[in-house]
Amino acid sequence: MKQLLLVAAVAAAIPCVASAQSSNVTLYGLMDAGINQVDQGSAATGGKQSGTRIDSGLMSTSRWGVRGNEDLGGGLQAVFQMEGEVQADTGAGGGAGGAFNFARRAFVGVKGAWGELTAGRDYAPAYWADIAVDVTGYGLYGSSRVFQAAGGLTNRFSNGLFYTSPNLGGLVVRAAWSTGEQVTDPKDRGNAWALGANYGSGPLLLTAWYQAVKNTATPVVETKEIGLGGGYTFGPLRVVAGWGKADPEGSANNLQQVHVGAGYKVGAGEFYGQVTQLKREAATGTEPKATLFGIGYTHGLSKRTTLYASFGQTKNNDTGNFALVNAATAFAPAAAGQDPKAFALGIRHLF
Amino acid sequence: MKQLLLVAAVAAAIPCVASAQSSNVTLYGLMDAGINQVDQGSAATGGKQSGTRIDSGLMSTSRWGVRGNEDLGGGLQAVFQMEGEVQADTGAGGGAGGAFNFARRAFVGVKGAWGELTAGRDYAPAYWADIAVDVTGYGLYGSSRVFQAAGGLTNRFSNGLFYTSPNLGGLVVRAAWSTGEQVTDPKDRGNAWALGANYGSGPLLLTAWYQAVKNTATPVVETKEIGLGGGYTFGPLRVVAGWGKADPEGSANNLQQVHVGAGYKVGAGEFYGQVTQLKREAATGTEPKATLFGIGYTHGLSKRTTLYASFGQTKNNDTGNFALVNAATAFAPAAAGQDPKAFALGIRHLF
Amino acid sequence: MKQLLLVAAVAAAIPCVASAQSSNVTLYGLMDAGINQVDQGSAATGGKQSGTRIDSGLMSTSRWGVRGNEDLGGGLQAVFQMEGEVQADTGAGGGAGGAFNFARRAFVGVKGAWGELTAGRDYAPAYWADIAVDVTGYGLYGSSRVFQAAGGLTNRFSNGLFYTSPNLGGLVVRAAWSTGEQVTDPKDRGNAWALGANYGSGPLLLTAWYQAVKNTATPVVETKEIGLGGGYTFGPLRVVAGWGKADPEGSANNLQQVHVGAGYKVGAGEFYGQVTQLKREAATGTEPKATLFGIGYTHGLSKRTTLYASFGQTKNNDTGNFALVNAATAFAPAAAGQDPKAFALGIRHLF
Repeated sequence: MKQLLLVAAVAAAIPCVASAQSSNVTLYGLMDAGINQVDQGSAATGGKQSGTRIDSGLMSTSRWGVRGNEDLGGGLQAVFQMEGEVQADTGAGGGAGGAFNFARRAFVGVKGAWGELTAGRDYAPAYWADIAVDVTGYGLYGSSRVFQAAGGLTNRFSNGLFYTSPNLGGLVVRAAWSTGEQVTDPKDRGNAWALGANYGSGPLLLTAWYQAVKNTATPVVETKEIGLGGGYTFGPLRVVAGWGKADPEGSANNLQQVHVGAGYKVGAGEFYGQVTQLKREAATGTEPKATLFGIGYTHGLSKRTTLYASFGQTKNNDTGNFALVNAATAFAPAAAGQDPKAFALGIRHLF
Repeated sequence: MKQLLLVAAVAAAIPCVASAQSSNVTLYGLMDAGINQVDQGSAATGGKQSGTRIDSGLMSTSRWGVRGNEDLGGGLQAVFQMEGEVQADTGAGGGAGGAFNFARRAFVGVKGAWGELTAGRDYAPAYWADIAVDVTGYGLYGSSRVFQAAGGLTNRFSNGLFYTSPNLGGLVVRAAWSTGEQVTDPKDRGNAWALGANYGSGPLLLTAWYQAVKNTATPVVETKEIGLGGGYTFGPLRVVAGWGKADPEGSANNLQQVHVGAGYKVGAGEFYGQVTQLKREAATGTEPKATLFGIGYTHGLSKRTTLYASFGQTKNNDTGNFALVNAATAFAPAAAGQDPKAFALGIRHLF
Repeated sequence: MKQLLLVAAVAAAIPCVASAQSSNVTLYGLMDAGINQVDQGSAATGGKQSGTRIDSGLMSTSRWGVRGNEDLGGGLQAVFQMEGEVQADTGAGGGAGGAFNFARRAFVGVKGAWGELTAGRDYAPAYWADIAVDVTGYGLYGSSRVFQAAGGLTNRFSNGLFYTSPNLGGLVVRAAWSTGEQVTDPKDRGNAWALGANYGSGPLLLTAWYQAVKNTATPVVETKEIGLGGGYTFGPLRVVAGWGKADPEGSANNLQQVHVGAGYKVGAGEFYGQVTQLKREAATGTEPKATLFGIGYTHGLSKRTTLYASFGQTKNNDTGNFALVNAATAFAPAAAGQDPKAFALGIRHLF
């Protein structure tokens, strides 16, 4: 994901030619695949659901994209990016029916000393704030992104305007506005706005976000998404913690998470562990709850290539139906109250 | 859309290597996004349909592609291209369900002193003739491509052979043949052939096209598409005008357009305006008609990056149902007789 | 398909920069299109089904992809690839509804002196063994891949692990294992494993494969796929022969093929011919059989660009329903017992 090397396989050497040093376009991506032993617990009918899988993106979603910028003079740059998912286990894309699309990121805009302003589809401010305090970087088992998968955090906006501040003494502020593009009442269906902040100073990291996201139902329900996080690095040790809440209008419908994680570097590798608690309010009956934990080890063969081993489990209470990592059926509990777990070995290669 | 710069982000420099100076492959594209205030008029039920959108491709369709050529010696070249749409507001592609595909252009062929011959999917001759005399280049509000969207001009052929002549003293002639690939009677379903010509001499531009396009119904209906256009440049001022007609077999079913436009360059920018009249014959009742106009300003921040502002409206008569720019629902009148209008601000970046 | 040349169209020259000589990423592909006269024989209702087509991939499937490797030190490399089909006649991809995806190849892994181990989706061992002894390289008319299309050979696995040995004195062994990822009984649905070997020594080529592929039905049916092949090159002449059998559990359901082909090089061109016999066991009635032949000429305009002419026919017995080249409707017999034939002229360009 760091760079593009453009090499042709044959004879004579000629230099690459560009319009100027003022612009560049980069093709980049990553491929992540591994072997995965998954146990989803027992189905309501009693059968234990478990099996062996070859999966894509166990550490980071496999993808490719193109991004670039152009120096417009006066400190101004044009910027753009387009990025889509590639499932390394099947070749499918991230769209319906396995179609490839660029729904991970697609935007164009300008950047200057005042920050960056883009239009299109991109990560919401909460994503940048929350991923920074997840010890797995939203990857591997134990990631707190189960909260996101359960509806706790809107991580991307389509049809949005995105502003990112310059680095202000360690503070980066993000704001976004997204339109539901409705032309009939209620016209605010699907609208959203969001703020997020990441502050870093030496070993310290602090993040926060607030997002107001309206659904497309009638009447419209707005969900307030709010969260805080922090981290600290002590030599080879880093610790992170975060809290988040999604609060839809109405009563007894909150979803909350709190997590704490730690990583310890040993040479080119790092051991990590993280625990997350999830709780969904219920108007009646037992509140669904889960405790999710994961441990693992990542080993850098180079800056671009990493091997990983990871184990995790989501322990649901009787009514809990929280997944192991994301919304995929393969990682969901076989029934409410079941405790999906998995162990994976894999490789991630950035290009 | 002009060039590819391939830059890797890291350490040591090594030269790009190619088989010879005789060949090249280029990754190119553009991203265009903006904010757009659209008013589609009032629905039959009375509600006014209007709203704010973040849209892709308001000036030019966002896209990416790969193209290349290889010198085969003796003045002969192999050529190929593949290009698909990327919606900069959502990341969707141009296919069904938002799938990415290369349906904008996909062909391979050869090129020599005698011209270029390719096989595949590409623009029809009428496209090259008509776009040259549209002051907006089929972009921004006021574009006469509403005629195309309404069925007046077939702008691409699949399963085609495409010939483009060399530049013969300013004249470029294009011919295309496309097969409907039918194996059962009537076997001519979907067949088409077309001719087009663009002539340029100093400030003067003249274009013409004729296309015979058969549909896939039984019995087959052939539509004759014919058009003429011209333009003239007086220093910073350019004026264009065009006329087109689609005439399906049968009576009282013509669709016609006539348009005139002008652009005036001021420094790195250009002001433009264009008016188009559309008329569809009707066997009975009032003929649907519309007058479409648009004005705007484009400002080049560089050769590759352009800011734009554009306003346009389509004024339909009582039975008129013509859209503002293309077939998209978002730009159609809310009901027959309504006058959709919109104002957009955006940025287009070529790479 | 051999190399990437990255050239930008404009002014100043700057060198491409890469992280080190230790890594590279290549964008590659091919576009193949031609004109094709197809006769599928007569439908049951009597009408002759024939027509003219512009087709993609008559010699090789049109495609593009990205592949790369990184030197990890100690003789170890990281490798990855993603590749998808592009239909050069329509721009469609290889997925449902014409969506582009990377279902041709998508994997990541490591490579060393001990061989290569990858995870993802890739060719099955039988593919590498069988294509090596098809005189057309699974392209053009007369290709024995009709056997594959009829269910005789599984040519790709998703969710697989793939091992390729180093070249051991001319011998390359491949092994693959693929999981059906089932979590409910019978859990072995969709599982497969496979072995293949290609041996080359001077003019001699020998290949063999064995694949055990389970379907996803209940109860599971396993098909044993087995084959052998050989080739020999005498100066400008090469001859190939192969045999294959797919044997599902149960009786009287085998599918077998045997083929022999030859190619003769004349300057930059090659004439070829190949005959294949196909036979499917039937529990009752006449066994479906076919004799498939094809002849053609390929002419290299360069290492990357080839012109081709090819004719072929599949002669089915009364119950035979074998296609001309692949599973596409356009190349199937109009009815059982019909003899589809076609003649194509085209161009293939690698990049």
